[in-house]
Amino acid sequence: MEFTGVYHKTSEQMSYPYNENQLIVNIKTGYDVKRVFIHYGDPFDAGILGGKEKWTGKREEICYKKRLKHQLWWTTTLAPLYKRCKYYFELQTDKETWYYFEDGFLTEEQLHMDGRMLQCFIVPWMNPADLNMTPDWVNNTIWYQIFPDRFCNGTPEKNTEDILPWRTGPVTNRERYGGNLSGIRQKLDYLKELGINGIYLNPIMEAESNHKYDTTDYEKIDPVFGDEKEFSLLVKEAHDHGIRVMVDAVFNHCGPKFAPWMDVQENGRASEYADWFMINDWSDLKKKADTRDGRFYSFAFADGMPKLNTNNEKVQEYFCNLCESWIRDYDIDGIRFDVGNEISHSFLKKMRERVKRLKPDIYLLGEIWHDASQWLMGDEYDSVMNYPLMSGIHDFFIDKAMTKQDFEYMVNHCYTMYMQQCNNVLFNLLDSHDTERLMNRFHDLDMFYQQLAVLFTMPGSPCIYYGTEIAMEGGHDPDCRRCMPWQELDSEENRQRIAEMKKLISLRKQEPSFKSLYFHFPGNYQEKRCVEYIKLDEQNQKIEVLLNCSEDSIKVEEQGEILFARGYMNGSLAKNGTLIRRI
Amino acid sequence: MEFTGVYHKTSEQMSYPYNENQLIVNIKTGYDVKRVFIHYGDPFDAGILGGKEKWTGKREEICYKKRLKHQLWWTTTLAPLYKRCKYYFELQTDKETWYYFEDGFLTEEQLHMDGRMLQCFIVPWMNPADLNMTPDWVNNTIWYQIFPDRFCNGTPEKNTEDILPWRTGPVTNRERYGGNLSGIRQKLDYLKELGINGIYLNPIMEAESNHKYDTTDYEKIDPVFGDEKEFSLLVKEAHDHGIRVMVDAVFNHCGPKFAPWMDVQENGRASEYADWFMINDWSDLKKKADTRDGRFYSFAFADGMPKLNTNNEKVQEYFCNLCESWIRDYDIDGIRFDVGNEISHSFLKKMRERVKRLKPDIYLLGEIWHDASQWLMGDEYDSVMNYPLMSGIHDFFIDKAMTKQDFEYMVNHCYTMYMQQCNNVLFNLLDSHDTERLMNRFHDLDMFYQQLAVLFTMPGSPCIYYGTEIAMEGGHDPDCRRCMPWQELDSEENRQRIAEMKKLISLRKQEPSFKSLYFHFPGNYQEKRCVEYIKLDEQNQKIEVLLNCSEDSIKVEEQGEILFARGYMNGSLAKNGTLIRRI
Repeated sequence: MEFTGVYHKTSEQMSYPYNENQLIVNIKTGYDVKRVFIHYGDPFDAGILGGKEKWTGKREEICYKKRLKHQLWWTTTLAPLYKRCKYYFELQTDKETWYYFEDGFLTEEQLHMDGRMLQCFIVPWMNPADLNMTPDWVNNTIWYQIFPDRFCNGTPEKNTEDILPWRTGPVTNRERYGGNLSGIRQKLDYLKELGINGIYLNPIMEAESNHKYDTTDYEKIDPVFGDEKEFSLLVKEAHDHGIRVMVDAVFNHCGPKFAPWMDVQENGRASEYADWFMINDWSDLKKKADTRDGRFYSFAFADGMPKLNTNNEKVQEYFCNLCESWIRDYDIDGIRFDVGNEISHSFLKKMRERVKRLKPDIYLLGEIWHDASQWLMGDEYDSVMNYPLMSGIHDFFIDKAMTKQDFEYMVNHCYTMYMQQCNNVLFNLLDSHDTERLMNRFHDLDMFYQQLAVLFTMPGSPCIYYGTEIAMEGGHDPDCRRCMPWQELDSEENRQRIAEMKKLISLRKQEPSFKSLYFHFPGNYQEKRCVEYIKLDEQNQKIEVLLNCSEDSIKVEEQGEILFARGYMNGSLAKNGTLIRRI
Repeated sequence: MEFTGVYHKTSEQMSYPYNENQLIVNIKTGYDVKRVFIHYGDPFDAGILGGKEKWTGKREEICYKKRLKHQLWWTTTLAPLYKRCKYYFELQTDKETWYYFEDGFLTEEQLHMDGRMLQCFIVPWMNPADLNMTPDWVNNTIWYQIFPDRFCNGTPEKNTEDILPWRTGPVTNRERYGGNLSGIRQKLDYLKELGINGIYLNPIMEAESNHKYDTTDYEKIDPVFGDEKEFSLLVKEAHDHGIRVMVDAVFNHCGPKFAPWMDVQENGRASEYADWFMINDWSDLKKKADTRDGRFYSFAFADGMPKLNTNNEKVQEYFCNLCESWIRDYDIDGIRFDVGNEISHSFLKKMRERVKRLKPDIYLLGEIWHDASQWLMGDEYDSVMNYPLMSGIHDFFIDKAMTKQDFEYMVNHCYTMYMQQCNNVLFNLLDSHDTERLMNRFHDLDMFYQQLAVLFTMPGSPCIYYGTEIAMEGGHDPDCRRCMPWQELDSEENRQRIAEMKKLISLRKQEPSFKSLYFHFPGNYQEKRCVEYIKLDEQNQKIEVLLNCSEDSIKVEEQGEILFARGYMNGSLAKNGTLIRRI
């Protein structure tokens, strides 16, 4: 047996309670393992630990599996009668049988050796307080990300001199275009019509830049966007439109004009805020230069974005209070934590407890680009921005050497990283204010929709970046933040694109299989780059998703009801074509 | 390359801050990997995430490795200048080079493919509040576990009728022998003389049984053991003797006479303590029968030990207050949490915060028999009872088919499960009140000392169970709880045994290499079961540990200074012999 291929542990996503009664157990093995059995039972079935009685479990086959690049991922769900479970695995290859315990592999003989201490895997107790619970509504949500300065100017008559005329095409970093909350309010009908039921708003608290990630005042809506009353109205009206609102919380660092930072720059160590930041050298805090000299820590090396010390209980308290007030004053539905991996776990645990107490179904989303297991144990974030999926999809489209199996491995990798309750509310995206725009990557509308078809059929919740409904272009930051071309929305081209987006959104909302956690890759097609997967809902209703990523058109058996198609006609799916059908 | 053999992630013990400046990074590979390099640097060296700049790290070889049964464990320590680190690995076999990222393996060509999004491993920020810090003193401690009823009766003149005369030989469960706190106080000189500097006391709070794991009153010292004043005196006098005191905290369940449980039995759902327990069927809480019917949850299936609901904030608060009072009133140094895996993480996190605030270097020890990674992240326990090591040592001695390599793999497995700061304070034991006694397993004094030699040279802190200094026998619970035969301690045999123990203890205390974290297995001897390892201290001072577990004596090169030896003479180590020397 390929011993190194076998992996299990009783923590993280390998073994965890899915709810108060069910325990999900996953195990990875090499491809040489043909059958897997779990022997499980109550740890105390044969008396207490350390005693002389011999414990034996019930033997059950694990049938369901996913293919990873080098390993199989086997998964089963148990319902331990007394909330606790002890188990070991029996692994069968064509030739051998091995018993897998926490300390390694035993032969049949060793398994039964008198006096040997068997180190079974143990899930000691499924405590409800430790259950990883995520908000139900998120999986039903279609997010729309808005970069406020560039979405809609609702009050052009009030434009000050520094506001540039609204324009289409490339933008640079320093410009202001006057988009504001009033503008968003005016477009709620538009968003509702599109099918959107969640807005993710880039920061709106007072800050100097147009992106507002350099907060001056966390308690004040930026006057260029509106005021507190305006934001209250926006949330209220959004709710009236069936749209939830998530705000951006920039707690990793502040801007240069944040009062405590100004105080520290003025008073140095004597400032009552001295411990609010991470300062190594107090001699020249006003120096204008990047922070590679380490005089203090900042976001990236930006001296205008000093890192907040979220290890400090006073800072923790300040931001917990702040989030509570956001909930109380505005009734927000979600908080997206900017640079969510750099702020302390200690802070996040407190934050979660505080805000969930006030609004139990609030959605806490971390901006984390890499494996976020540590933050998704149920006591910090509900979920993260699913950049691994974005990268994976992107890499498949850019790297023509990758096969449909690689696509399968990639998707399975992404959905075996976290617990199912997190997978169910992952924030899936293909671009954002931090990346080039999706349309920019290939400048190909067919490939653009292929990728969107994946986005809309993956577990989690899809987010489209404003303008994606018309396949807006835009390079890397800052060019990905162009003005929304409202004047051009009625063009034939844009109306067609909006119609495509509406179709995808309404399918996602109406078809449970689109948003379900269940999928597999049947492999019915020969073509190396014909991606093909089936999604199933709880009632076993199925859809088939086909993406022809080969260089030639492919033959497709005509069957089922077509839900979404591009480049498909009479059993032939063109290069870069997409077909989603109910089968 | 054997892809399945490669494993790394940025959480748990694979990648973690060792202190505020150092980051330990471990990676597992198959044995086919001959060289490992890490490419690392600051995540923002090439601008912010999602941008178009290409990041490259500094390339450094990872040289230090441990052998596991099927994999190599490579380890390195980095010192990220700005508290954050981004990295990927370069793996070289004899024939191939692969680059290992969070989402898998890339070829050189893929690594440099334009536009590909490289998913590096990321340690975003080493926040001090999240640092796993364990108390320094524990690694210097030699524990002595005392089962109070059986250790020493300090007031035989006060014996009541139900107390049996002190005796040697087998015992059963129900008996009372009158051991008490006064008795322990009287033996502090004895313990100090032995070299002990930590006592782990089985429960002493009021309870009906002799083992006291069925607490009646958590706030009252059991009158059969003494009173609050007596315990205060014991701790004070122990401290005067340079001995720390750890108590047993039974918070998973209570005894049948715990007032809140009595109240619930009387008043049912109406009781103010209704949510303190885990009750499913309220109809007959006084029923005398095991709890396999699930009417309520209990320890194992004992109806006299109802599970406390540590998910309930009131219960959490009660026990946090209790532990604070134990610290304030008695100045205890450690708390061992009984059934430490079944109580909620939520409770343990609060508990740690509360007690560490009051006494920062208190030692929090969980009774967990299996992989305890989840509890050892730095915000719950400092460490656990090292039963995996106990089982591993035991299995090697019982299973003659196991080779010295298996021994090496087992030790390396045990010391690659957790972060080094936890390894450094692991509670190592070879037996306890829950297992048969060490001497009972083989009834062989030489094998007994071989196992103790391992115990005393492993990272962590060794604990000997009372009576082990004279190789006391005793079968599984309850027989492992025999009375300490004070009358026989002066026999020639016992004096010799005590001398051996003193030698091991004083070596452990005096030789930094005995307690250090650093060891390796050089493999200089041919014999399959000649266990041989080198331990090094921070100054590179070395000791060699040799255990002849073969059937015949073996030849040993004469060198170095002998520190401890059994069965060794003139370059020959007898079967079951032990040799520890400074080399």
